[in-house]
Amino acid sequence: MTTLDHGKYFTSLPREYYVSPEHFKTELDQVWARQWVYVGHISQIPKRGDYFTFELANESLLLIRDEGDKVNAVHNVCRHRALRLCDKPTGSVRKRLVCPYHSWSYALDGELKTATRQTDGENFDYSDFGLYKVHVDVWKGFIFVCLADEAPKPVASMIDEKSSADMDLIGPTRLKVAHEIVYDAEANWKLLLENGVECYHCPSVHPEFCVVLNAEEMSDYYDRDMVPEVVQGLVIPVKAELDSLSMDGSFVSKKLLGEFDKGVAIPAEFGAGFMTQPGYAWGGFHPDYGMVATTIPISATRTKMLCQWFVHEDAVEGVDYDVEELIKIWDVTNIQDLAIQERQQQGLSSSRYTPGPNSIDQEPGIRASLRLYLDMIGELEDSER
Amino acid sequence: MTTLDHGKYFTSLPREYYVSPEHFKTELDQVWARQWVYVGHISQIPKRGDYFTFELANESLLLIRDEGDKVNAVHNVCRHRALRLCDKPTGSVRKRLVCPYHSWSYALDGELKTATRQTDGENFDYSDFGLYKVHVDVWKGFIFVCLADEAPKPVASMIDEKSSADMDLIGPTRLKVAHEIVYDAEANWKLLLENGVECYHCPSVHPEFCVVLNAEEMSDYYDRDMVPEVVQGLVIPVKAELDSLSMDGSFVSKKLLGEFDKGVAIPAEFGAGFMTQPGYAWGGFHPDYGMVATTIPISATRTKMLCQWFVHEDAVEGVDYDVEELIKIWDVTNIQDLAIQERQQQGLSSSRYTPGPNSIDQEPGIRASLRLYLDMIGELEDSER
Amino acid sequence: MTTLDHGKYFTSLPREYYVSPEHFKTELDQVWARQWVYVGHISQIPKRGDYFTFELANESLLLIRDEGDKVNAVHNVCRHRALRLCDKPTGSVRKRLVCPYHSWSYALDGELKTATRQTDGENFDYSDFGLYKVHVDVWKGFIFVCLADEAPKPVASMIDEKSSADMDLIGPTRLKVAHEIVYDAEANWKLLLENGVECYHCPSVHPEFCVVLNAEEMSDYYDRDMVPEVVQGLVIPVKAELDSLSMDGSFVSKKLLGEFDKGVAIPAEFGAGFMTQPGYAWGGFHPDYGMVATTIPISATRTKMLCQWFVHEDAVEGVDYDVEELIKIWDVTNIQDLAIQERQQQGLSSSRYTPGPNSIDQEPGIRASLRLYLDMIGELEDSER
Repeated sequence: MTTLDHGKYFTSLPREYYVSPEHFKTELDQVWARQWVYVGHISQIPKRGDYFTFELANESLLLIRDEGDKVNAVHNVCRHRALRLCDKPTGSVRKRLVCPYHSWSYALDGELKTATRQTDGENFDYSDFGLYKVHVDVWKGFIFVCLADEAPKPVASMIDEKSSADMDLIGPTRLKVAHEIVYDAEANWKLLLENGVECYHCPSVHPEFCVVLNAEEMSDYYDRDMVPEVVQGLVIPVKAELDSLSMDGSFVSKKLLGEFDKGVAIPAEFGAGFMTQPGYAWGGFHPDYGMVATTIPISATRTKMLCQWFVHEDAVEGVDYDVEELIKIWDVTNIQDLAIQERQQQGLSSSRYTPGPNSIDQEPGIRASLRLYLDMIGELEDSER
Repeated sequence: MTTLDHGKYFTSLPREYYVSPEHFKTELDQVWARQWVYVGHISQIPKRGDYFTFELANESLLLIRDEGDKVNAVHNVCRHRALRLCDKPTGSVRKRLVCPYHSWSYALDGELKTATRQTDGENFDYSDFGLYKVHVDVWKGFIFVCLADEAPKPVASMIDEKSSADMDLIGPTRLKVAHEIVYDAEANWKLLLENGVECYHCPSVHPEFCVVLNAEEMSDYYDRDMVPEVVQGLVIPVKAELDSLSMDGSFVSKKLLGEFDKGVAIPAEFGAGFMTQPGYAWGGFHPDYGMVATTIPISATRTKMLCQWFVHEDAVEGVDYDVEELIKIWDVTNIQDLAIQERQQQGLSSSRYTPGPNSIDQEPGIRASLRLYLDMIGELEDSER
Repeated sequence: MTTLDHGKYFTSLPREYYVSPEHFKTELDQVWARQWVYVGHISQIPKRGDYFTFELANESLLLIRDEGDKVNAVHNVCRHRALRLCDKPTGSVRKRLVCPYHSWSYALDGELKTATRQTDGENFDYSDFGLYKVHVDVWKGFIFVCLADEAPKPVASMIDEKSSADMDLIGPTRLKVAHEIVYDAEANWKLLLENGVECYHCPSVHPEFCVVLNAEEMSDYYDRDMVPEVVQGLVIPVKAELDSLSMDGSFVSKKLLGEFDKGVAIPAEFGAGFMTQPGYAWGGFHPDYGMVATTIPISATRTKMLCQWFVHEDAVEGVDYDVEELIKIWDVTNIQDLAIQERQQQGLSSSRYTPGPNSIDQEPGIRASLRLYLDMIGELEDSER
């Protein structure tokens, strides 16, 4: 008997893991601050000096495009008196980041260039007061950050060859974000993770999704005893006879992605994508479009989910695609899921909640993901390994 | 000198009892979870499968009508992954409660009937995963629950013969809820209790109520040293020359209740009702209508109060009674009280608040109720018994 | 190396001081409850029985005009059952403060006069249950309170002769409040203090203010090693060629203040005022008008700021002054400052915030004010004295 294993069945976690601010703090430090977290795509910052911000619990990060393909990631906190340097979600600077409080300025890599009316070296050295850096890894245009002192191994090294080759087919660096939604749920972020790694709930919760989903392929995605990578490839399988993951299974963008736009034949049951866990993000690409969702923990009982819909960088809105049609299947599905997670959070708060038996056949992904989670917070018991 | 007794005078409680989340948690466990709590009336769930929910701090309870007069009370939490099963305040199911997440289903008494695609006994026994039950007691149509493992003695056994006989006169099982209001106050629930057991404030706060109230009978309702029952009878006395508790003392429903509708003479100064304490509810019935109010603790500094107005089950709105007229005297009075309790909560938060001397003649009920409260949380000193 | 001093440079405080509820509680007790706090002006309560309330964290204070010039300050909490006696920001009573709950009544100095239907001395002595008093000091019409048991030395004794004489010139008891704004900022109160004692930020943040401000005089207002008084004189310096602190430097009230209205020549670079710290208030008067701002701590991360604009008591709105014009320069400046402090609070919440080097030449006031603050909470190290 361990946290997860109870004789013949396994469960999710006890209540405190989903409601306690102390557990949440531990998770920020031991999970979210140590793994690669998906934050956005290179196409969002095409030119030098372009930036976007990403908020993760109390942290505000600044992603800045530098020379060529280089992307810098720094803490969005002035080293003088702590001002949040950039308070818009996206923008562009010329050569310097300038603090609005006392006009201290920083280079695009965070180096302190001017402390107003104070000479470098007189009372302190400029070199000691650059912006705090964050590890950044750009994999095929997808930007990941890690808040830890030591970066994990590169994203590319975690993803298998097949997933990598499939992703190359959709031209991952030649995408654009056609639409973005930030959902807000009164639920612990792990409920979104657990929901995402099982499709046992699909028939009850997602009638529209089930019209196009190849649920059988989904259900054996996980093995109960697998040890997942933090980042890995992902295919969200569509029924063999359909073209794309849309309300009716047809394409929602006429301009196909990457090689398919150039006439390369679409492989049978094609799909590309990636996922991260325990800090949970997932991206699924079909021949015409893709969607990436990243969960953002706000507190023990509140989570945001940023969803981005991608099309070919040259696709034209109103001509090649219609936003409403493009986003519909995932928007409907996300709203259904988050409503469930909010009701689950309410139920969990009951003093009489006890973790119940999960299905060994239908929900093995939960055990796999929660073992990874427990391992990262130092609570995996030997018998669970 | 004890918490309540200070030589010749007695006081209410120190500040922490009204503001501290820790005290609040203790109270939920030691008071609210151990006593009978009034939650509603049998007429709200007339048919098999009808249900209503009742929220008490973090708990959501499900009250379900079963065969005949039977009422089941269960925790509204799926045993699989904790979903709040029913998220509407009221509704009706056929034979089963079905969880919207993975379609697990339960019988009306909470027994697990189907764990989707999982055979009973294979990895777990269905019989181990029924909904958690809650004690329920229906006294003359009024439904009470208790969250404790062991139920207290039956409600009927706590109420004296006279109160029981008077209640029978108004036909307590043949009522209907004509109107319901949920008030919300930024105040600790015990301030509502203390206010309810004294009428010292009536002349200052309730000019309309005092027109019809027989205040003298009210003031000697309590003895300073009485030991109250958790549930007991209650009469809210109206002046002898008046018919009912209404703005002008006349009937507000033409269809009289119970025996009076059948022509039985109304006894002099008739009134029926009950109250619970420390977790506070009170109900007062006159020959034509009644009102039941139940306080619902939300946090140390916030309380809801559910008020239900009852008329004869065959009374017709617009013909026999007008809702505005029916509810007016209590609605006016409740709003006055809750405004006072909010100002009291604000005052209590001052660092300089110290409990002041309560009136021995006018406020004896406060001492009686608070002794019961202190006894339940294990803090009554021997000298206070 | 101390909290503030790091070799050649000094810093502001570590994060916990700006975000922790525990630190906030300590500050209320050790700083705000021990110093003189500016609460308002005698002109707000011209007649006997006039009162206004002042809320400071959880405390509600009642300032009441008594006979002649006398002002009483008491806790706005009934000694019977803790009701907030007066819940309007301002009002007037005849001879008694009467509690709305049970009609207990108090004299204007807080003495208990009637405990309804309870004889003095029977179960308790009226003299033991007067309203709790608060120290009050009226300096030239400006009202200060202190919550401590022992009052600090009088306000007058802390202010130098020149400041006192300059204040007399503007007729400080013959003012009226022409307008009042309560600003609300999601920021710790000390960020407002630190901002107020440096003008290093003025060029970046306050373009309008800098048109009229004599910034050079501002910058040497403080010496890095000074030990400030809790209350002291203050001049907000306007450029020599201008008349007043307004958008264009001209007068915004035609009716000049005090002696200037009687024809007395305005001294070169005239200004009068006062400030309090660490609990931060400041008032600046020019020949035609003045502004007093007082910060009101609400929680560790929230602060209100009450601003009052004063003109001559006989000035007529629409004739002598226009409210919009009168308040504009300070309103613009306050809004700019508070937006900065909110962004600073956001930045401070980052786990990677570390206090940065403050400018020895441009921000010496921060060190002076924070030393006073640390001294009051008992954390000033000997090497910082």
